[in-house]
Amino acid sequence: MDISVKETARQLERAQDVVIVAHKSPDGDTLGSSFALLYALQALGKRARVECSDPFPKKYEYFLKGYQPEGFEERFVVSVDVADEKLFGPGTGHYAGKADLCIDHHQTNTDYARCRCLDYGKAATAQLMYFIFREMGAAVTPLIADCLFTGITTDTGCFRYTNVTAETHEVAARLIGLGAQAGEINRIMFETKSKSRIAVERMVMESLEYDFSGRCAMICISKDILTRSGASEDELEGVSAMPRQIEGVMAGVTLSEREDGYKVSLRTSEQIDAAEVCALLGGGGHARAAGCFISGDLNSAKAAMRQALAGFLPA
Amino acid sequence: MDISVKETARQLERAQDVVIVAHKSPDGDTLGSSFALLYALQALGKRARVECSDPFPKKYEYFLKGYQPEGFEERFVVSVDVADEKLFGPGTGHYAGKADLCIDHHQTNTDYARCRCLDYGKAATAQLMYFIFREMGAAVTPLIADCLFTGITTDTGCFRYTNVTAETHEVAARLIGLGAQAGEINRIMFETKSKSRIAVERMVMESLEYDFSGRCAMICISKDILTRSGASEDELEGVSAMPRQIEGVMAGVTLSEREDGYKVSLRTSEQIDAAEVCALLGGGGHARAAGCFISGDLNSAKAAMRQALAGFLPA
Repeated sequence: MDISVKETARQLERAQDVVIVAHKSPDGDTLGSSFALLYALQALGKRARVECSDPFPKKYEYFLKGYQPEGFEERFVVSVDVADEKLFGPGTGHYAGKADLCIDHHQTNTDYARCRCLDYGKAATAQLMYFIFREMGAAVTPLIADCLFTGITTDTGCFRYTNVTAETHEVAARLIGLGAQAGEINRIMFETKSKSRIAVERMVMESLEYDFSGRCAMICISKDILTRSGASEDELEGVSAMPRQIEGVMAGVTLSEREDGYKVSLRTSEQIDAAEVCALLGGGGHARAAGCFISGDLNSAKAAMRQALAGFLPA
Repeated sequence: MDISVKETARQLERAQDVVIVAHKSPDGDTLGSSFALLYALQALGKRARVECSDPFPKKYEYFLKGYQPEGFEERFVVSVDVADEKLFGPGTGHYAGKADLCIDHHQTNTDYARCRCLDYGKAATAQLMYFIFREMGAAVTPLIADCLFTGITTDTGCFRYTNVTAETHEVAARLIGLGAQAGEINRIMFETKSKSRIAVERMVMESLEYDFSGRCAMICISKDILTRSGASEDELEGVSAMPRQIEGVMAGVTLSEREDGYKVSLRTSEQIDAAEVCALLGGGGHARAAGCFISGDLNSAKAAMRQALAGFLPA
């Protein structure tokens, strides 16, 4: 059942012994929003804890503050920024079917919880959470402001993406006014790259090839690159966006090596429908970002992509 | 003489036949603020034109709208985002000593105009300009909103730098509400890299070396790299910030090849005073960013930098 921000606030006010579930492979929005909620509930004298299938990445430690989960039997389960129960992951999978409330901003939300507070006009769940707190009259401390600012800035690529609205900036202004360390958070999130990420970028860029007179750029993330760089899955975030960001490129292709072939990620400019291209190879997705799988070796994967693109790009 | 936003608005309301001077090597803030002022003055029925020593980069064309300067003899000269008359450049140098008004946000402003509206608490001149327009009661059209948003987003690295305040986000929110195409502007300014820039990054990253157990990272921009990539000077912007952005790196060194040696740019984390290090080699600068020149070949330049850094970094 879809419920309003007001009703969500009332439910949270009534809730006791709350388990907050963040999605697996946690990002800044699921963690920032979850911990903001944790601290707000604790300030109301409630018992609460955040659970997540995967460990919390170290870069968020400024708002984790040596977090130790409190032990208690849950009486209210709220999932935060989790579009689908599949995203609970193995560690929190036992809460599937038991969520009393889901707070989210994903258009793809599968409506799995008893109640759902969903607003996909918000750039981040943290942006929605701000309005829930306001309705609750919950105090936004500097620590909570840091949490919410983290969610907003990470889900918008530092206010860069087209999901940003006037309201997103308004909320950011309020959070900074309430003590969010915006400059420091942005430095941690966007100005620091791990050595293994640097190594991946270097090796991946060595694989860069242009086709169709520079309108297509292709990169390859081989298993060898992952081994040599020591990069983890979450350190690859954003790599597949790189080829499309090159001037004049209308189709950016990233080939990721798998056991029996290549996972393909295609990003396109507005002239080309990425989903249509990938459909030719049995895949699918969105108009600007889509994917497919191609069996075989690297050269045949490249050839298949070139052939699929040929009808969409001038030679 | 320093004047208030209110008095600045009154002067602009009275001004006729206005020449607006942007600084040489124009960036998004000087151009966005200058064209915003141009369009606001024209809407009041005044004659005005923007002058700049250098051509307008093509990426700003969405607010230049086929701009053709109007010919008239100037009766009021206002410089916008120009900290020093030296920054007028050769093409507008004849206005030196003739500025009636300077609107700026640089702390280093040299107070060269008859009147000065300076607020270095603003992240961009465009942020200040917004308040001047509000005082004038000038209509902020979608085109003017695009101009001002461009100034703010470029001078803050898309809201990333520490110069961003709550007010910066508030003004951004207003501008989006007034029709600024934020997503599209950010895409043009931040998501597009030229093929030659990509080539430079690739070659420069191949030169990456770590020293002092990963606490120092060094890159080299050789003349050969510039020739092979075809990159121009302004395409190198931000390259020297790259080594310091690597996790764990306290000293990021960029060696740029010159005729008789290497120009060194040093960026440091807060534990190391970059100016002190560079002073050992006859250079200077700021605490976090400094430079010097080292004669000789690449290996001796690297050795000299390592030696200078040795007293500041554990081996």
